[in-house]
Amino acid sequence: MITRKQYTEVQQKALELIAKAGIHITPEEQTRIAVADFGLSDIYSQGIQVLTFFETDRIAGKILVLLPNQTEPEHWHPPVGNDPGKQEIIRALWGDLRFYVEGDDNMTEGFIPIGKEDVFRLRHEIILNPGDQLEFQPGEKHWFQAGNRGAVMYSFSTTVRDGLDGFTDSDIIRETKIIES
Amino acid sequence: MITRKQYTEVQQKALELIAKAGIHITPEEQTRIAVADFGLSDIYSQGIQVLTFFETDRIAGKILVLLPNQTEPEHWHPPVGNDPGKQEIIRALWGDLRFYVEGDDNMTEGFIPIGKEDVFRLRHEIILNPGDQLEFQPGEKHWFQAGNRGAVMYSFSTTVRDGLDGFTDSDIIRETKIIES
Repeated sequence: MITRKQYTEVQQKALELIAKAGIHITPEEQTRIAVADFGLSDIYSQGIQVLTFFETDRIAGKILVLLPNQTEPEHWHPPVGNDPGKQEIIRALWGDLRFYVEGDDNMTEGFIPIGKEDVFRLRHEIILNPGDQLEFQPGEKHWFQAGNRGAVMYSFSTTVRDGLDGFTDSDIIRETKIIES
Repeated sequence: MITRKQYTEVQQKALELIAKAGIHITPEEQTRIAVADFGLSDIYSQGIQVLTFFETDRIAGKILVLLPNQTEPEHWHPPVGNDPGKQEIIRALWGDLRFYVEGDDNMTEGFIPIGKEDVFRLRHEIILNPGDQLEFQPGEKHWFQAGNRGAVMYSFSTTVRDGLDGFTDSDIIRETKIIES
């Protein structure tokens, strides 16, 4: 859960990073950046900010924003019925961005959120500079993290079904609960 | 057909417009902007410049560039086998951009390329400002045109099969022939 005050504060910080990245978004888009805390109630440590540009029954385009040193938990996009599962392209736009995928442990820049060693299993680090892209097939596990400046990237994909994503951390609840206080 | 010299010149002009739009592309991407003259051999009148960011068997992302007053011919994306056909999202990024779709004739800013009244049948004009988006379903005809500054936009879509697009103008050949001279 996250308080309404903190939610608004995090939205504002995400907007500032999108502006730093030089990405133009419309006034309407500025009002609807979604903040996801994955039910971990620790948004500045684990979470993500998402602006959905478009989402149809077949494709979706989003801006993803990580605040400084914020981490998106390890997850994957499973098959759903006749759909083989979400295929996703990440394109780095700005900031300090690291992805972790299957492969040998070559982790040097990133860190595992405290006490979460068991649920961040991937340790193969890929540093993404602006314009660098990664492609994830359905089922391919990944997690990612910003460095000191935060990070801004595009995510383009086939059909999005965030609610059906798989997470290594069983404490995760995909829906973010906002506390009006 | 287009001469190699003109092809290179057009690529350079497209790069300049991408830079004006404030879009960062990598040095590798700068080398592979495709110029399409649709076999009409009149690139500054009818044609388009395309930079493909990514293209998988399921989705694609491109930057489309129109030079000043350049027109993309009227076309549509038909069904192909089991695929219902290409669904496409256009997001305007920069410049003067007009789309033409089915609907009443409200054309005020655009123009029909000389002598081509019969093959530009759609006259319902939509002016796109930066951040504005349009969604095209398979089979939906459209054409578009830049004003005096040119225009830069994203195209995100399901599977691309440019070679199978339908064109109102039967003179069109989708492949661009380059003359080494």
